Amino acid sequence: MKLVSPLLLLGVAVVGTAAAQPAASVAPTVPALRRFEPAYPVRYAPMPVPEIRQVMERVHGYLDGVTPAQLIDAKTRQPVDLAAANPNAVIAPGDFLLVTYEWGVTYAGMLLASEVTADGRYADYAATRLKFIADAAPRFRAQLAALPENARERMRVPFRSVNAPHTLDDSGAMAAAFIKAARAGHHPEAFRPVIDNYLKWISRGQQRLADGTLARNRPLPNSLWLDDLYMSVPALAQMGALTGDRAYFDDAARQLIQFHRRMFVPEKGLFMHGWVEAMDPHPAFHWGRANGWAVMAAVELLSVMPDDHPQHAAVLAIFRAHARGLAACQGGDGLWHQLLDRPDSYPESSASAMFVYALARGINRGWLQPLVYGPCVSLGWNAVAKTVNVKGQVEQTCVGTGMGFEPTFYYYRPTSVYAAHGYGPVLLAGAEMITLLQGQGADANVHDGAIQFSRAAAWR
Amino acid sequence: MKLVSPLLLLGVAVVGTAAAQPAASVAPTVPALRRFEPAYPVRYAPMPVPEIRQVMERVHGYLDGVTPAQLIDAKTRQPVDLAAANPNAVIAPGDFLLVTYEWGVTYAGMLLASEVTADGRYADYAATRLKFIADAAPRFRAQLAALPENARERMRVPFRSVNAPHTLDDSGAMAAAFIKAARAGHHPEAFRPVIDNYLKWISRGQQRLADGTLARNRPLPNSLWLDDLYMSVPALAQMGALTGDRAYFDDAARQLIQFHRRMFVPEKGLFMHGWVEAMDPHPAFHWGRANGWAVMAAVELLSVMPDDHPQHAAVLAIFRAHARGLAACQGGDGLWHQLLDRPDSYPESSASAMFVYALARGINRGWLQPLVYGPCVSLGWNAVAKTVNVKGQVEQTCVGTGMGFEPTFYYYRPTSVYAAHGYGPVLLAGAEMITLLQGQGADANVHDGAIQFSRAAAWR
Amino acid sequence: MKLVSPLLLLGVAVVGTAAAQPAASVAPTVPALRRFEPAYPVRYAPMPVPEIRQVMERVHGYLDGVTPAQLIDAKTRQPVDLAAANPNAVIAPGDFLLVTYEWGVTYAGMLLASEVTADGRYADYAATRLKFIADAAPRFRAQLAALPENARERMRVPFRSVNAPHTLDDSGAMAAAFIKAARAGHHPEAFRPVIDNYLKWISRGQQRLADGTLARNRPLPNSLWLDDLYMSVPALAQMGALTGDRAYFDDAARQLIQFHRRMFVPEKGLFMHGWVEAMDPHPAFHWGRANGWAVMAAVELLSVMPDDHPQHAAVLAIFRAHARGLAACQGGDGLWHQLLDRPDSYPESSASAMFVYALARGINRGWLQPLVYGPCVSLGWNAVAKTVNVKGQVEQTCVGTGMGFEPTFYYYRPTSVYAAHGYGPVLLAGAEMITLLQGQGADANVHDGAIQFSRAAAWR
Repeated sequence: MKLVSPLLLLGVAVVGTAAAQPAASVAPTVPALRRFEPAYPVRYAPMPVPEIRQVMERVHGYLDGVTPAQLIDAKTRQPVDLAAANPNAVIAPGDFLLVTYEWGVTYAGMLLASEVTADGRYADYAATRLKFIADAAPRFRAQLAALPENARERMRVPFRSVNAPHTLDDSGAMAAAFIKAARAGHHPEAFRPVIDNYLKWISRGQQRLADGTLARNRPLPNSLWLDDLYMSVPALAQMGALTGDRAYFDDAARQLIQFHRRMFVPEKGLFMHGWVEAMDPHPAFHWGRANGWAVMAAVELLSVMPDDHPQHAAVLAIFRAHARGLAACQGGDGLWHQLLDRPDSYPESSASAMFVYALARGINRGWLQPLVYGPCVSLGWNAVAKTVNVKGQVEQTCVGTGMGFEPTFYYYRPTSVYAAHGYGPVLLAGAEMITLLQGQGADANVHDGAIQFSRAAAWR
Repeated sequence: MKLVSPLLLLGVAVVGTAAAQPAASVAPTVPALRRFEPAYPVRYAPMPVPEIRQVMERVHGYLDGVTPAQLIDAKTRQPVDLAAANPNAVIAPGDFLLVTYEWGVTYAGMLLASEVTADGRYADYAATRLKFIADAAPRFRAQLAALPENARERMRVPFRSVNAPHTLDDSGAMAAAFIKAARAGHHPEAFRPVIDNYLKWISRGQQRLADGTLARNRPLPNSLWLDDLYMSVPALAQMGALTGDRAYFDDAARQLIQFHRRMFVPEKGLFMHGWVEAMDPHPAFHWGRANGWAVMAAVELLSVMPDDHPQHAAVLAIFRAHARGLAACQGGDGLWHQLLDRPDSYPESSASAMFVYALARGINRGWLQPLVYGPCVSLGWNAVAKTVNVKGQVEQTCVGTGMGFEPTFYYYRPTSVYAAHGYGPVLLAGAEMITLLQGQGADANVHDGAIQFSRAAAWR
Repeated sequence: MKLVSPLLLLGVAVVGTAAAQPAASVAPTVPALRRFEPAYPVRYAPMPVPEIRQVMERVHGYLDGVTPAQLIDAKTRQPVDLAAANPNAVIAPGDFLLVTYEWGVTYAGMLLASEVTADGRYADYAATRLKFIADAAPRFRAQLAALPENARERMRVPFRSVNAPHTLDDSGAMAAAFIKAARAGHHPEAFRPVIDNYLKWISRGQQRLADGTLARNRPLPNSLWLDDLYMSVPALAQMGALTGDRAYFDDAARQLIQFHRRMFVPEKGLFMHGWVEAMDPHPAFHWGRANGWAVMAAVELLSVMPDDHPQHAAVLAIFRAHARGLAACQGGDGLWHQLLDRPDSYPESSASAMFVYALARGINRGWLQPLVYGPCVSLGWNAVAKTVNVKGQVEQTCVGTGMGFEPTFYYYRPTSVYAAHGYGPVLLAGAEMITLLQGQGADANVHDGAIQFSRAAAWR
């Protein structure tokens, strides 16, 4: 309904305060002066771009200080030169590991942040560390090769996952980051061998079901982890863009379509976290971050897949159905919940940031309507930004999480600023929100008290 | 299951306390004496009619004291006679405005209250103020006409919306109140010009979609506001009853049917608040009060529409499907929530009162079964009555609310006793509950601890 | 995703603490040392069998002390010998009544507990009291017969429900317990007349709908109480097993199938509590314990019904659909809620215990997959066990409950350790969990932090 009543009351009340009251029935209208301002728990209006940049800079500043890219001698603690032979060399410790799937996302976020803001510091963060990895990893190959195969992971030879990836967690997110960096002009020759080594694992090494769907034997034989969509699809899609070989797009689209067929729950518009071939029925726990991996994978694929690819429409339809389901379960305070369909589970930052990134990019690329999804991502970003503390740490992030088949496991996953999963998504989300708000300009406003994104964007 | 166990235990325990215990194995049964009385947060049994009347009288008493129907001089604060020319004349300020859609509902509530209770004070409240409006409005016509058209709203000439309605908010609810008053014998001649002026806007002035559905260009082009069902359908239906012209029923039924086709979500049995032609998909926020406007509109139409109208069955089916969805989401404490399908949003009084009114009338008129809906409305009324404070103010009412496309907007709408939307619905609900309980008599009882409405009412 | 990150961080950090830090950029990693241990509100890993036995022994110990099986003189409080004529004889009072449907479940739980644990104390509890009932009841027949029929319940002649059962609450659960005891070799001759008397009521005395569905005229004519599935089906099924007469299985299957057709809500996978023939629509309140009665009835029938019975597949399908719906609404702390689909209603122990029993037996008998349901019941048991206090009392049990048609009735049912409904289900659940965990052995473990039941059990 119209909001004019309080305003009119205000007008009248001004009259009412101009002189003494003539009659008892003309009651003072002081209470009516109240403007009924909502007490939002989070910034409600779209955040101005400079403030978004400040949030991203806080994150960058924190990470740049706590993730050194150097080798040290494990005994003396002294720096070790890359060229020097030193059997005690290890990666210098920091708050986060440099070579993980989580940090693959962080590098991707840094690269996008520079692309959008033209601030080179973000890309430098990624390029420096990726170059360090590409340069340092080879010197540990012999050390790794000298170990019996079954001892390689246990002995923790540095860069084991670079030199001998044997899971999608080892390879997919890092590979996508390396390719994105190379395609942006950062050390393409130096990175190519690392990239090829990762892709060899994804395309030919990883276990698959009979129909080619990427699978694991954990926790049970032939299990699908929704997370694996991000651990494969972005790397495959980027490799398609890097090489022009359409077979990579074919495989990427196939993964998304075949996971979707098995794991999407249409009446909720959400994916289940895990699927085990032998299970009937499949318990459906709609873990937030897993849905984040899935929707980001779709977005990464759509971002580089040719429009005329035969599976383009199918991938877009999956993305849109998922986007709709995600928007429908956003929490009252702007974040999404750990279990998306369970509002009594805790609000979680990494999944929320992933959704903001994916849906904002969906608007920016014309896959989603700004009218429909603009308010959702604007609010979602404001809530995500609130989880970034003054030090630049991302709070309320669920730590690494296995596949569970009862709710308690998900409800009580701890959160920590040292859960590395929130950082990349926050940078990605911030960058895409800047693009969105710059594109919307003054049209992203509050009308009748509610956020509206009214500019008709390019829409297909 | 049977509740006999505690009673039997009680019986046995009386034996047990009659003498000393003969053996250790015959334990004292003091704990078993507890009768397991529920600690309800709200009165549980149906409220006796005299107490319902007391609640309504408190509301009437409060409103009668704070909504003077007179003109004053804005500078001197002295009363201005209706007949006197005075360029400074304004409506005397009060806690609520006399000419709003909200107060249209209040007048309708007062009229029904008198009809049901035979207490003339309620009807007097409405008739006096409506007569004041009908008499005073014309003297401001020239003042309004002297303004450039685009300044008319801004300058706030009194009775602008009566003299020159240009929205459904201006016209629909007030028109319905004027017609109901006229049909009840209150100043029918004096009211007819006002009525005709309102209906001209509703039938021919207001923007429509190509298929005739009433629409607005706010917040975006060709938007449907569910609220507009109440801002049109009751007035059209009443005008059909006043004039006998079936075209009014046709248009009223068309609105309900065409809104329903676009905005009803069958799997929830609820309407979405807003629909924007350009949106795909349509975000579905099930705001309580908007659903209240819709279900009241259906009830108002069914109350006067001829049984043999070709759309009667369609309207009744819409009402029944909506009633079922509403009953299924009543909150644990008897009120409905601000977002009906989100139990973590706050309990809201105006929507709850609307549902009690609509469903109770549905029972009273034979459109709904008392067996099914009697317990729901009895409890709902008790919870609504609890929101009426000792002064007669209705608490927990959401203030005026725009159309939102993310949840936070709705979750954090403020509530205020100065939100005018709760008063009319409370009177309507109370009046209809009196009719219900008088019709049920002693059959509305608590059996096995639970409310049951067991008399088979007229039912078609 | 993999959980290796924290572990790797730990490894690195050990290095980091081995010597002084060489540079500011090599930050101390103390925070990263945190292992992110979940703070579960309930034991998470499967409970070892000896601890399950301790919980059951606490319950047995409590009940054995507070439910004496003897007659006393109501005036003198002195014990009365069974053989002696004494017009003042009554059953000695205790914390619970010996002859109720709730205690029928307790006796069944005691019998199963002995069967599983080979600890005779449980069976003794049941056999002693059932023998007392069978022996004592006949001496009160004349006293009962001397009363006018309409005064028999009011006057509370001891053993009225044994001598003259006139409801399913009187007969079904007690009959099933007597038959189970007889089939286990406890006093089969002495129990047979009691059994036959009960079954006469169930098969031929109780009101039925035209299609043979067992019904009541409470709260309204031709009402179905979901609870009645347990008050009939287990007794009928056991009688089929005792006598070999397939007509008992036919009737038992018919009840389950016909209740299911009317009262199962497929989109939720849950039953409504009550169904009243005259109602349209049927309000659907998914009360936990009623769903517990239904799923236990299915399990009891499947436990003894011949595999080649023509309705076996239909009963199994009903059970599996229900099991799926139940698992999907388990609460975050492991218990189910009073209204299963309303997480803001309270966690309730008796229903939770019933579900653990039914689903665990479903796994044990090959009707459900351990992979799917093992984690659910393991966690559920741990949560149920937490409701058993140090005295052996079961807490958080909803008291006896009528049929309600608004939510408040269910939300505010009191809980009490003197609500007798929790005790039998806790014993049944514990016994079935012992069978499950003994069968799973070391395969019921925590992998990647989550419970997994990975042994492929017999499965059809």
